[in-house]
Amino acid sequence: MLRLLSLLLLLGTGSALAQPAAFRVTEFATGLEHPWGAAFLPDGGLLVTERPGRLRLVGREGQVSPPLAGVPAVEAQGQGGLLDIALAPDFARTREVYLCQAALVQGGALTRLLRARLSPDAAALEEATPILDATPPQAQGRNHYGCRIAFGPDGALYLSTGDRYVTKMRAQRLDDLGGKVLRLARNGAALADNPFANRPGARAEIFTHGHRNPQGLAFNPWTGSLWEAEFGPRGGDEINILRPGRNYGWPVVTHGIDYDGSKIGEGASRPDMEQPIHVWVPSVSPSGIAFYTGAAFPAWRGSLFVAALNPPGLVRLTTEGDRVTGEERLPWNQGRLRDVLQGPDGLLYLLTDQARGRVLRLEPGTSPR
Amino acid sequence: MLRLLSLLLLLGTGSALAQPAAFRVTEFATGLEHPWGAAFLPDGGLLVTERPGRLRLVGREGQVSPPLAGVPAVEAQGQGGLLDIALAPDFARTREVYLCQAALVQGGALTRLLRARLSPDAAALEEATPILDATPPQAQGRNHYGCRIAFGPDGALYLSTGDRYVTKMRAQRLDDLGGKVLRLARNGAALADNPFANRPGARAEIFTHGHRNPQGLAFNPWTGSLWEAEFGPRGGDEINILRPGRNYGWPVVTHGIDYDGSKIGEGASRPDMEQPIHVWVPSVSPSGIAFYTGAAFPAWRGSLFVAALNPPGLVRLTTEGDRVTGEERLPWNQGRLRDVLQGPDGLLYLLTDQARGRVLRLEPGTSPR
Repeated sequence: MLRLLSLLLLLGTGSALAQPAAFRVTEFATGLEHPWGAAFLPDGGLLVTERPGRLRLVGREGQVSPPLAGVPAVEAQGQGGLLDIALAPDFARTREVYLCQAALVQGGALTRLLRARLSPDAAALEEATPILDATPPQAQGRNHYGCRIAFGPDGALYLSTGDRYVTKMRAQRLDDLGGKVLRLARNGAALADNPFANRPGARAEIFTHGHRNPQGLAFNPWTGSLWEAEFGPRGGDEINILRPGRNYGWPVVTHGIDYDGSKIGEGASRPDMEQPIHVWVPSVSPSGIAFYTGAAFPAWRGSLFVAALNPPGLVRLTTEGDRVTGEERLPWNQGRLRDVLQGPDGLLYLLTDQARGRVLRLEPGTSPR
Repeated sequence: MLRLLSLLLLLGTGSALAQPAAFRVTEFATGLEHPWGAAFLPDGGLLVTERPGRLRLVGREGQVSPPLAGVPAVEAQGQGGLLDIALAPDFARTREVYLCQAALVQGGALTRLLRARLSPDAAALEEATPILDATPPQAQGRNHYGCRIAFGPDGALYLSTGDRYVTKMRAQRLDDLGGKVLRLARNGAALADNPFANRPGARAEIFTHGHRNPQGLAFNPWTGSLWEAEFGPRGGDEINILRPGRNYGWPVVTHGIDYDGSKIGEGASRPDMEQPIHVWVPSVSPSGIAFYTGAAFPAWRGSLFVAALNPPGLVRLTTEGDRVTGEERLPWNQGRLRDVLQGPDGLLYLLTDQARGRVLRLEPGTSPR
């Protein structure tokens, strides 16, 4: 199952005194249709969603299970389908998992969060229950669902939602759950200390607003802050640090332009809106993000990895506290990447956004001499 | 003179199949005060300007000469002083050199281009003569001079000039030589086939307009196109490809914002203005640029190197034709960089923007095992 895909690559070190990092790319699992999100189980197995609506378990040797039973129907059109998955922090005791999907309801499609329980034999989801619909639904368009899930050090569940593309200003409306990052209790309810919990006319679930299509969401393990990556329009992809109640500007301010070359909104900044800490022009299409904390690549500790769809590849951002200090695009010839995550073994696992999609693994290598 | 400054660094390769590039940083020359521009002589010597107004010759072993005689007075305030230097394409026969400097004239300071001849013993400039003043002079402010020189495959001399910071709209005015790239004959005159040569009220020297502070200028040796790097405001540093007569937008469109956080101009784009091919937000402060064509680092062939002031370091952009395909920030602990150039030996030479400035050299290294 493991096949050496490329010659050894020697990559940039994090600092002048760090040891050089050498890696090779291997195929960990194959035969997955547009894998989108993944989560490691305590026993080392990997749950992987397929966008058309299947969930599979990849064993420690890369063997792919049949589809799990009990997965709800999804709206698998456009960018929608079965999207992210995350384990509850107390999964070992509760076996609770959370999934994000595109769902069809009266009035159109929306981003939906579900809670479920993984069966003891890990062959099925039990009692999969929708716990939050990012209303209102939208009749037109099946794009920009957002849909990443992250648990915070505060125990809250954070969920990103997209602006749904057709009506950009949804991201600015506080009575609308599109184009937001939400902060939720384990049952999908708004938390009482959320920034807009007491504002009349605002949805209490909102943590931050003004997002376009956020598909990267990760807590910085060293600072505790919440980092987010979102797709800009033509140019203007962003990394943001999310603070409660803040407005990240879309579509009023952006560093990008529209696909037809025309201007969007008022410009790149406004005093009452937040600036990203890192922008790409032209775009890299950042999908998943993950901080690297492992021991397998000492030179990479502290880096934020960004899975990029286009140009396809893996971007490594070096960080200091809540700042980005450098960027490296790793040499890449393996196709579009939808997500990146660190395994319990300290290796990096990547999902390729392909009809015959794969889970790739980056392993330390030694120089061929 | 040569001192090993850092342990070996193993750096990213240009493609998955390229050989890995390993380099080390050595000090080639020291004791230079804010070196700004440099040019290699046919015998391997290196002419280096110091911003306060001196020109020195660095020998092939790194020994630094006394200041050359015959260098004109400069306005060494703010960002001004003696800035870039370039050899004429026929230097071997004519010994002609071109310099760019900040000069004081009635009414204020401006960017000035000079032509001179290097004496046979290389100890003096002879007949240094101003051949172009980027008028109008400006009484206020001593910043944003631009001042890079590049000779094109067409034999023309290209000179970048800054907007002089105080009145941003100088960059948009066609009767003003600030915030432009100029295309000149060897005597400083406008060329007859320049894009605005026949437009009433426009300066015939102008090749492109709408620039803020362009300090990187280099012809792509594979495509023949002219690449330019300029400092944005807060964010919005740009790489542009310059086409005759085009407007690169400053200060009407920019991906950056003002130092006080406020908006500049109309946004990030306008249909009648050019988009950069690469933008940095936040800024890297790109000063000099150089394409790498050498044999010493095969994996780096085709890359554009960018000397960065802040955060200090060397940025490597991978390119395909006239596109940027990737970015790597090399690990760096050696201070702000003002310029980068390739030596006749295929090694990279860097000028550090320091009061006790240096010429650093990147050499291939081998792994310590």
